[in-house]
Amino acid sequence: MNITHIEHLGIAVKSLETAIPYYENILGMKCYNIEEVADQKVKTAFFKVGQTKIELLEPTSPESTIAKFIENRGEGIHHIAFAVPDTNEALNELASKEVRLIDKAARPGAEQLMIGFAHPKATGGVLTEFCCPK
Amino acid sequence: MNITHIEHLGIAVKSLETAIPYYENILGMKCYNIEEVADQKVKTAFFKVGQTKIELLEPTSPESTIAKFIENRGEGIHHIAFAVPDTNEALNELASKEVRLIDKAARPGAEQLMIGFAHPKATGGVLTEFCCPK
Repeated sequence: MNITHIEHLGIAVKSLETAIPYYENILGMKCYNIEEVADQKVKTAFFKVGQTKIELLEPTSPESTIAKFIENRGEGIHHIAFAVPDTNEALNELASKEVRLIDKAARPGAEQLMIGFAHPKATGGVLTEFCCPK
Repeated sequence: MNITHIEHLGIAVKSLETAIPYYENILGMKCYNIEEVADQKVKTAFFKVGQTKIELLEPTSPESTIAKFIENRGEGIHHIAFAVPDTNEALNELASKEVRLIDKAARPGAEQLMIGFAHPKATGGVLTEFCCPK
């Protein structure tokens, strides 16, 4: 596997409206994109810090996995996303090493990425995404 | 606040011996340092991915905050550490903005860093470290 950097960190928040001012006014970052990902039932806000983006995730429905995460564990870091040259190749390599996957094939995510998740039971409790540009 | 990049991500693990092979053999990273931080009651293992380090944290005592984290929430991402030019300046700026802190002054951490934590209640549930080289 050839991971070049951490593409983003996903952080579950109850409300973008409440969370964005902390990142902007306290941490001095700038929100450069707000995007709804309908099939994941989330509204996202993006910040850049060095090579890595911070992706705030607000659930748009109680059925969203983010809503369930917040219900179970509270707001906080939800997942890490590693940049790879080709998401499908990465998923295939993981499968060949018998790493349990959530996604067997890449699917479209926010920010024009093709994404796929490994299962946190196979990654030491860290929900892990692999992604590459579309 | 002038955050340049994510210096590291701290990940709580029950056992470095079990976790390191996942990072090396599955993700293709290389562990370049193992270090015990006695006053935090942890043994740490470091990997580099782009600008950012991954710091695995294994508790060396049941009294370690990492042991308590794992007991309450299981293994997983424990904290995010932002690189700043001066940790004390960052902590002072946070205090001036009435952000609740765990550390009022910088203290020595692993990897020759001066570190300080804000309280997760003030940072949307994300345990957040600020750090700079000693």
